[in-house]
Amino acid sequence: MNKTGLNNLIRPLVRELHPYVPGEQPKVKGLLKLNTNENPYPPSPKVIQAVKAAVDGRLRLYPNPSAEGLRARLAKLHRCKTDNIIVGNGSDELLALATRAFVEPAATAANRRQSRSVYRLNRSAARLSSASTIQYFTPSYSLYPVLSSIHGTTQNAVHLNPDFSLPSIGELRRAKLCDFRAALTFITTPNAPGGRGYSTAALNELCHWMRGVVVLDEAYVDFAGEDAMELALKYPHVLVSRTFSKAYSLCFQRVGYFVGHPELIGALHKVRDSYNVNGLGQIAAEAALADPTYYQRNFKTILGTRDQFSAELAQLDFEVLPSQTNFVLTRPPKFDAQVWLKKLRDRKILVRWFSALEVRNYLRITIGTPEEMARFVKAAEAILGAA
Amino acid sequence: MNKTGLNNLIRPLVRELHPYVPGEQPKVKGLLKLNTNENPYPPSPKVIQAVKAAVDGRLRLYPNPSAEGLRARLAKLHRCKTDNIIVGNGSDELLALATRAFVEPAATAANRRQSRSVYRLNRSAARLSSASTIQYFTPSYSLYPVLSSIHGTTQNAVHLNPDFSLPSIGELRRAKLCDFRAALTFITTPNAPGGRGYSTAALNELCHWMRGVVVLDEAYVDFAGEDAMELALKYPHVLVSRTFSKAYSLCFQRVGYFVGHPELIGALHKVRDSYNVNGLGQIAAEAALADPTYYQRNFKTILGTRDQFSAELAQLDFEVLPSQTNFVLTRPPKFDAQVWLKKLRDRKILVRWFSALEVRNYLRITIGTPEEMARFVKAAEAILGAA
Repeated sequence: MNKTGLNNLIRPLVRELHPYVPGEQPKVKGLLKLNTNENPYPPSPKVIQAVKAAVDGRLRLYPNPSAEGLRARLAKLHRCKTDNIIVGNGSDELLALATRAFVEPAATAANRRQSRSVYRLNRSAARLSSASTIQYFTPSYSLYPVLSSIHGTTQNAVHLNPDFSLPSIGELRRAKLCDFRAALTFITTPNAPGGRGYSTAALNELCHWMRGVVVLDEAYVDFAGEDAMELALKYPHVLVSRTFSKAYSLCFQRVGYFVGHPELIGALHKVRDSYNVNGLGQIAAEAALADPTYYQRNFKTILGTRDQFSAELAQLDFEVLPSQTNFVLTRPPKFDAQVWLKKLRDRKILVRWFSALEVRNYLRITIGTPEEMARFVKAAEAILGAA
Repeated sequence: MNKTGLNNLIRPLVRELHPYVPGEQPKVKGLLKLNTNENPYPPSPKVIQAVKAAVDGRLRLYPNPSAEGLRARLAKLHRCKTDNIIVGNGSDELLALATRAFVEPAATAANRRQSRSVYRLNRSAARLSSASTIQYFTPSYSLYPVLSSIHGTTQNAVHLNPDFSLPSIGELRRAKLCDFRAALTFITTPNAPGGRGYSTAALNELCHWMRGVVVLDEAYVDFAGEDAMELALKYPHVLVSRTFSKAYSLCFQRVGYFVGHPELIGALHKVRDSYNVNGLGQIAAEAALADPTYYQRNFKTILGTRDQFSAELAQLDFEVLPSQTNFVLTRPPKFDAQVWLKKLRDRKILVRWFSALEVRNYLRITIGTPEEMARFVKAAEAILGAA
């Protein structure tokens, strides 16, 4: 079979895909990794202990297929029922499941073009198009458009204000750029890569007007002043996404969860793999929830480091956006952001740069330990001094 | 929002889904679990040691996004390249990814009905229909029709012979029940729940005639006399699926993999989650591959137990099908299989019963330790004696 023959075995939609590019995970010695928003501190010693203790003959058994124990604990934490919760192989899995449960793929590229052109003409066609629309604010998590492409849906990217704040309902209505009937809308809150937090009041108003499913992606919320969990329990069409990766130092274990109405949560359960969450991940997450004191201290430390680091960057003429996360988005002085990326890399410091127009002049820098941030500041001074 | 309003948020296809029902995982004390084909022996002590040693601060970091180390080891084992391999969150994830990468969803139920009715009339319509057909033999892994329903494709279930052997190409052609152009065909080999092994020669002939992607699902192959890995490296349209769950006692960790042509493997990489395999699972699987001696002994023990158990069942007038797996499918004497299920459950022994017509008179019994199988035989004798 030649390459053309082989290509015919792969769906045209998949052939055209550009995969999501995760942040680099290099194995260079002495490298300072400030590029993927990992927590600089290990998980609670009690988590390490619980996971170690579980590494025994039980590995031969299937894990609980719906993470029942963990869901019960989460239900208690969020004062809801187990049926309000689904656990995923990282929240990434759940974001993908949401596209498959709530959004119709646009049948073919041809059909898609057609339904777009009739969008303004015909209300029922518009409704049809909304049923296969994934909507998100931009800039935000760069995975959303990838998920849309994989599922073959229409994308509607709504611009945030230039300072990455949320446009008001009035502004969204006037600009006619927001599809209030979109089948699925992702809102990263606090925003990534912007770092800005959104008030529950503003999110409440947005949710109030949306007709499709809204996912409030709170991956960074433990570093923020407020969270919007109440909206997932108030509105039947609103889901809140959380992860154990960042705040709970468990990236390695792949555990995230959604909270929302049992009907929507039930639909997600129907389309997931039977044993989607590995057993040790379930044990780690349960143990993490049992040690809030450790993590509260952890968050406080990171917030302190963030504020000090932001002040130091400002002194070096970096423009630093206000952050409610464990990273800062910053516009560096003197050189283009991409030049900084290279210069930092030369000094074995890895940060994240995004090519998207709104953020291409910025660097996203993860908050590490105070020592790590001091190393960054020293490197920045050297780069500026050498200019 | 009332329930009807909520329902409108969920895709009609998903609303109609009946989820896959995994084997029961109860927490009854003293229960003998012979229902989900788990290995009765723990993983190699070296695996336990390697995983325990990895439970430290690194849990805070993302795992290798494409399981590079594990893929390199697997490539060496199967004498192929890293590009020939994708690792999944259990092989279940990869089976689902294959549906999304290779099979077009049938646009709507109405379209589906239409394209079915024209199937015999029009060759190009037939080709269209094949592009959205998932085909599998029946009985086999009951997940395949579920994956088809989730992805919204046409299903073509091809009956195995009454003794669960594969029909010959001649028989398949004459019966006109096999769609040789189906976009994706799953073949469980050795078969589950039948237990029968298929010769590489027979699979080779089948693959030769198939025009779409063929997945040889070798979940149980380590307990069989031969495997068909060579076909994945010979035919560009053939993928072999393997898992660390059963043979390697790692169900808890969720690690499976596919081997095949880089173009097909690349398509699967494009549609997977960025960090789909948890880090400790990657470490466990690598350590398992490093201790073949332990596992070869393990397989030999299970095969010995299987043969002895089969002989003992036969003496009690159970009809036992020949097995190349770590379970046996058996037609019990005196009572209906479903009655046996209940009577065994009353004696705290769990086995698997399937409601499908071809197997409803059978029980599927996992091979445990010799002591566990002796307990089963004793219980069976008591049930027969009490009759």
